[in-house]
Amino acid sequence: MALRVGVIGGGQLARMMIAPAVELGLDIRVLAEAEGMSAQLAATAVGDYRDFETVRAFAKEVDVITFDHEHVPQEVLRALVAEGVAVHPGPDALQYAQDKLVMRARLAELGVPQPDWAAVTNGDELQAFLDDHGGKAVVKTPRGGYDGKGVRVVRDASDAADWFAEDGDALLVEELVSFVRELAQQVARRPSGQMVTYPVVETVQRDGVCAEVFAPAPGTSERLVQVAESIGRQIAEGLGVTGMLAVELFETDDERILVNELAMRPHNSGHWSQDGAVTGQFEQHLRAVTDLPLGDVTARSPWSVMVNILGGPAEGTFEDRFDAAMTEHPEAKIHTYGKAARPGRKVGHVNVTGDTLDDVVYTARAAAAHFA
Amino acid sequence: MALRVGVIGGGQLARMMIAPAVELGLDIRVLAEAEGMSAQLAATAVGDYRDFETVRAFAKEVDVITFDHEHVPQEVLRALVAEGVAVHPGPDALQYAQDKLVMRARLAELGVPQPDWAAVTNGDELQAFLDDHGGKAVVKTPRGGYDGKGVRVVRDASDAADWFAEDGDALLVEELVSFVRELAQQVARRPSGQMVTYPVVETVQRDGVCAEVFAPAPGTSERLVQVAESIGRQIAEGLGVTGMLAVELFETDDERILVNELAMRPHNSGHWSQDGAVTGQFEQHLRAVTDLPLGDVTARSPWSVMVNILGGPAEGTFEDRFDAAMTEHPEAKIHTYGKAARPGRKVGHVNVTGDTLDDVVYTARAAAAHFA
Repeated sequence: MALRVGVIGGGQLARMMIAPAVELGLDIRVLAEAEGMSAQLAATAVGDYRDFETVRAFAKEVDVITFDHEHVPQEVLRALVAEGVAVHPGPDALQYAQDKLVMRARLAELGVPQPDWAAVTNGDELQAFLDDHGGKAVVKTPRGGYDGKGVRVVRDASDAADWFAEDGDALLVEELVSFVRELAQQVARRPSGQMVTYPVVETVQRDGVCAEVFAPAPGTSERLVQVAESIGRQIAEGLGVTGMLAVELFETDDERILVNELAMRPHNSGHWSQDGAVTGQFEQHLRAVTDLPLGDVTARSPWSVMVNILGGPAEGTFEDRFDAAMTEHPEAKIHTYGKAARPGRKVGHVNVTGDTLDDVVYTARAAAAHFA
Repeated sequence: MALRVGVIGGGQLARMMIAPAVELGLDIRVLAEAEGMSAQLAATAVGDYRDFETVRAFAKEVDVITFDHEHVPQEVLRALVAEGVAVHPGPDALQYAQDKLVMRARLAELGVPQPDWAAVTNGDELQAFLDDHGGKAVVKTPRGGYDGKGVRVVRDASDAADWFAEDGDALLVEELVSFVRELAQQVARRPSGQMVTYPVVETVQRDGVCAEVFAPAPGTSERLVQVAESIGRQIAEGLGVTGMLAVELFETDDERILVNELAMRPHNSGHWSQDGAVTGQFEQHLRAVTDLPLGDVTARSPWSVMVNILGGPAEGTFEDRFDAAMTEHPEAKIHTYGKAARPGRKVGHVNVTGDTLDDVVYTARAAAAHFA
């Protein structure tokens, strides 16, 4: 009987696991939040991932549990593990992706380079940090931030007064890093410890949302490539990650690398690998969480570029624009998430690969522009 | 709402349409012959494809009908079309893939090069053909042959006596072509007429079953590449094919090309394109039958090799061998069909791509050998 993989969460990341699961011969099943979500085709259950009984019933029908997102509560995860369910990544690792303060403290222990940071519980502590860092900083709610929400640049302690008022929990404050660009390092790690690292990529954010990814990161020195890889491996091992890990990085103007955020699942910064690497991140995640041997991460082409399709106000149906994009750009690989288009919502992405970066960027942007 | 594609037949070809359908955002549904078939994940109905009411009910829930095989009876297909159902390929085209005598006659009209052939209804006619062709020939039952069944080399009219006795229908007799190798040319064609052609490939058959495919066909002259492409286009257009067409070809020792068989669906000779071309044949078939713009067929690598995995007597589970194959050959792309392994049964295939043919062949064979 085929190995059964249960994915908690029915979003586009679960959806994009379906294709490689079918080819690998894995029986993929999804616990979706609602009917009609992106991963509908593999949704065998609908329910609340915060409810232990719901998750437990779903887990009974599969051999391993993994995730479309990092929001399953620790108590649910730990109760599953206590019952002998294979959960990858496990709760010990996932806590670092769920709580940015816990993550910062652990990365400090590991000696991983990161921005100056502090846990602050009131305006005075925040003001002290601001005074030490040129009067500006980034404040983050440690939990529940996603796609730029729960992140705010502050210049005065009063800028975070509402967040301090909401509950008594500590906030994370970080130095506002003067970076020249953002990078991302992906690592896959099996329960047995085998690891592979993807080439470090450049990510371009707009309005706090990933817009474009260039793979590999153009113009990166050999030293920086090695540093990024080494940081990725150190975190994957140090935090006991199983499955895909994405480490979002700042590159500073003095060529240092600092860790920004972590994700323990396939990540937008790795979508290029679906068409640009011998083993895409969704296949790799499935291999890693089922403890199958990891696949080759060699790039298929010198350059791959991913451009997100954000739902926009354009006239006509998604399908109309799909047709035009494909006609003009037959080499563009268009991936759709089966989601209704709303302004700013990620509804798909375009991957293009080739020998010349400028051409690849041009084609990927031009194809994606049909949907804007 | 997503475009709904209905696939009749639940085998591995339907299964391998699932991955690109998900990425393209098509709603794929399968009418399977039974529970638990290869394309189970997308099976929304189970029933007999020869029963019009079954097929009609399935067709009501989709926007276009296409196929995993060519066995749906003409009367069922024509009744669907009469009701306004979009069927691709349509019955007018499919008849040429369903009846080899009808195919031979039509290719003759088109002037496409093919082996000498005749329709014979008794031993005397067969003997006359044998006498004209050096005392040997190939006899085929015009309908229902698959994977070498219904094909027999004869040296005397009595060798086909049982087939003549079975029913009064004519048999197809063809000259036994002295070929140096077998090739296959794939073409995709939309209802609107747009066509793209894949590079001609070499196919290696063992015991009448496709064993290996080399893409492109090694050592092929530019002239031969053009002739194969031109034959493919002529047949796709002349027969009104929509979707993928595979033309199986003989290359003779005097560098002629003769048409052997036709298939109007994704075909074993095109599996390499899943990993070896920008647009794989399963995605291309879906694009063609939904009349979406066709994708780029450029090869991703200089060489791609496909080796079929035939179920064998080896000890251990399929999964055990999967693990070993992946460990030793992380660059091999292993595609599994979710079928129980029986000796000689196609249960998966391996694709490998690369710069050096010898290395690619070696790796593909070595990975597949784990399953033998």
